Amino acid sequence: MLQFDLLTTDPASHARRGRLTLRHGQVQTPIFMPVGTHGSVKGVLPRSLHEMGAQIILGNTFHLWLRPGLAVLQGFGGLHGFEKWNKPILTDSGGFQVWSLGALRTITEEGVHFASPVNGDKLFLSPEVSMQIQTTLDSDIVMQLDECTPYETRGQRTTERAACQSMQMSLRWAKRSQDEFQRLNNPNALFGIVQGGMYENLRAESLAALAAMDLPGYAIGGVSVGEPKDEMLRIMAHTPHRLPAHKPRYLMGVGTPEDLVEGVAQGVDMFDCVMPTRNARNGTLFTRFGDLKIRNARHKTDPQPLDGSCTCYTCAGPSGVAWDQGGRDGFSRAYLHHLERCGEMLGPMLSTVHNLHYYLNLMREIRQALDAGEFTQLRARLKADRARGV
Amino acid sequence: MLQFDLLTTDPASHARRGRLTLRHGQVQTPIFMPVGTHGSVKGVLPRSLHEMGAQIILGNTFHLWLRPGLAVLQGFGGLHGFEKWNKPILTDSGGFQVWSLGALRTITEEGVHFASPVNGDKLFLSPEVSMQIQTTLDSDIVMQLDECTPYETRGQRTTERAACQSMQMSLRWAKRSQDEFQRLNNPNALFGIVQGGMYENLRAESLAALAAMDLPGYAIGGVSVGEPKDEMLRIMAHTPHRLPAHKPRYLMGVGTPEDLVEGVAQGVDMFDCVMPTRNARNGTLFTRFGDLKIRNARHKTDPQPLDGSCTCYTCAGPSGVAWDQGGRDGFSRAYLHHLERCGEMLGPMLSTVHNLHYYLNLMREIRQALDAGEFTQLRARLKADRARGV
Repeated sequence: MLQFDLLTTDPASHARRGRLTLRHGQVQTPIFMPVGTHGSVKGVLPRSLHEMGAQIILGNTFHLWLRPGLAVLQGFGGLHGFEKWNKPILTDSGGFQVWSLGALRTITEEGVHFASPVNGDKLFLSPEVSMQIQTTLDSDIVMQLDECTPYETRGQRTTERAACQSMQMSLRWAKRSQDEFQRLNNPNALFGIVQGGMYENLRAESLAALAAMDLPGYAIGGVSVGEPKDEMLRIMAHTPHRLPAHKPRYLMGVGTPEDLVEGVAQGVDMFDCVMPTRNARNGTLFTRFGDLKIRNARHKTDPQPLDGSCTCYTCAGPSGVAWDQGGRDGFSRAYLHHLERCGEMLGPMLSTVHNLHYYLNLMREIRQALDAGEFTQLRARLKADRARGV
Repeated sequence: MLQFDLLTTDPASHARRGRLTLRHGQVQTPIFMPVGTHGSVKGVLPRSLHEMGAQIILGNTFHLWLRPGLAVLQGFGGLHGFEKWNKPILTDSGGFQVWSLGALRTITEEGVHFASPVNGDKLFLSPEVSMQIQTTLDSDIVMQLDECTPYETRGQRTTERAACQSMQMSLRWAKRSQDEFQRLNNPNALFGIVQGGMYENLRAESLAALAAMDLPGYAIGGVSVGEPKDEMLRIMAHTPHRLPAHKPRYLMGVGTPEDLVEGVAQGVDMFDCVMPTRNARNGTLFTRFGDLKIRNARHKTDPQPLDGSCTCYTCAGPSGVAWDQGGRDGFSRAYLHHLERCGEMLGPMLSTVHNLHYYLNLMREIRQALDAGEFTQLRARLKADRARGV
């Protein structure tokens, strides 16, 4: 099931405020979805995710299929029971991961033959297999199997002809995904994925064909695949707002805080990205006033938290009172710098809490601004703040 | 300051129930102290430590001296402010760590010359320097600088003569530590450390000399340094109960759950060990019914938590209701096995929560049994349970 209520739309942009009702609960949009590749959002306790307001998380069909495998997941009644997450879950189709295997896979009309990177087993992923796996996972939102059209291959940009063929196969896979999803009586919601590379005409063709299938939601795929930022922004300006207005729109794999704000302005409702979690583990922290590399020596003695306005456990401690509000319970930049230098696990743990909280809070601020009719002002303020530097 | 109230003593053993009052709060004994080497108990959020009932944690003088260094720690008013831990802290003297440097250090009567393993700087640690560092750290319990007498050197057991010389130097260092501690007007509590290797007569001599110094607490050092288990048990049976009864007794670096129960029976009040945290990261979990290696394939599909009687977040989830009491919110062995196989950070994180909770809860059960006059029964039950196998 999926119900999408469009609550408000911004008169000055394509931004919208919505509410998604799924089998495991409601999701207020626009939303950022933390990525739980192997059934765990890296470096963070599930309770911390709840506390920071995560409403829906991702799981990766490909990885979970290989490990722990379907027999184990079936024993737990799906991914929710296995990873003990009782709110909505979205799973990708596995398409992006098999595509990323490069030389280890062969893509045909039928599906993708590949060797398991875990144990070398020869495996086959098709739209039907992907639907079967995602039905076992029992994710609230299921993604169609698609072929991710590369931006370039060995330095050669994908031609329009190649992008068109790839997009059309993804459309046929969408239909096969839909047929199998229905045959399996999967009670959740299947999303289609718009492809077409960097060609607006192909994107429009993909979009029209998918819209005609009347799926409950749509994603924009094939971005964040190595293209220059202006190319991504061009597609982000083209596709989302052309998708059916009464259905949720999901921009896959994007992006920086700036990308998210821009995406919302272009009509996107849902985002996912490994950036907050991965950057946390690499010591790159997001703050209201720009990004911060905690390894930098200038943090060595700094008593301030990462972000003086932040109420996360890392910045504000158990009291949740931000530094700017007089709270002094958070962990200092000096301490986080020290943890990073010593290679202490607590460093990435605290950084992950902060970065995810930053992303989730950014979306919360956006939702509040949309509710209050102040999105234009917020957009300008966020941009100015982030450009200020930390 | 330090006040030690002896609440009850077990008539059938040397076990005792006490209460330690320190500058940053009270500690109920017998107690296990999690080890926070670099100012962080590895793999666990401070809030989790509070929730699982940690009353006092350790910090390492040697490591904190090298990183972040005294200037940084001074800026935070000591270790409590730096690591945001507002309950008591005990710091070791740095003696064990410089001793462990082996060829990189030279020990003389004056102190220890060594090269920093972080940046090669030539450094000098003496009783006076150790007291100065620990005064900056402002730890509630300060340990004297001692020389850790090795069990053997290149396969040769330490002779009585060598152990005696080493022990006597540690006594002179105890006096120098005490003098410097007083000169610095350190408001906390200095513990002496009984040495003497595996020789009871030397242990007795060390103990008598330290007792004459009227320090507020005493530790048993030089155990858990590579000696066979029966040697450790022999020293554990000899020394603790001979220490002044009205002062706290701390057995350094020990040990397994069985060692802790035995140590309590021999009159020990305080323990520290890296075992629960280190083993957690290696996938060895402590349970009521013995130890468990989570990597073992037999856990692959197991829906049970690590320990059905455990109420930690890992075993019982946010509700805290144990599996045996019908709780089903905890993480399964199958899930922990999966996390370990995938190298997910959440694996060591959840394992650390469990192992530390196990140790702290074991001590809580011991305290309750002592309060109820049932230590003998508990001791027998713990032994039988642990031997049963998980």
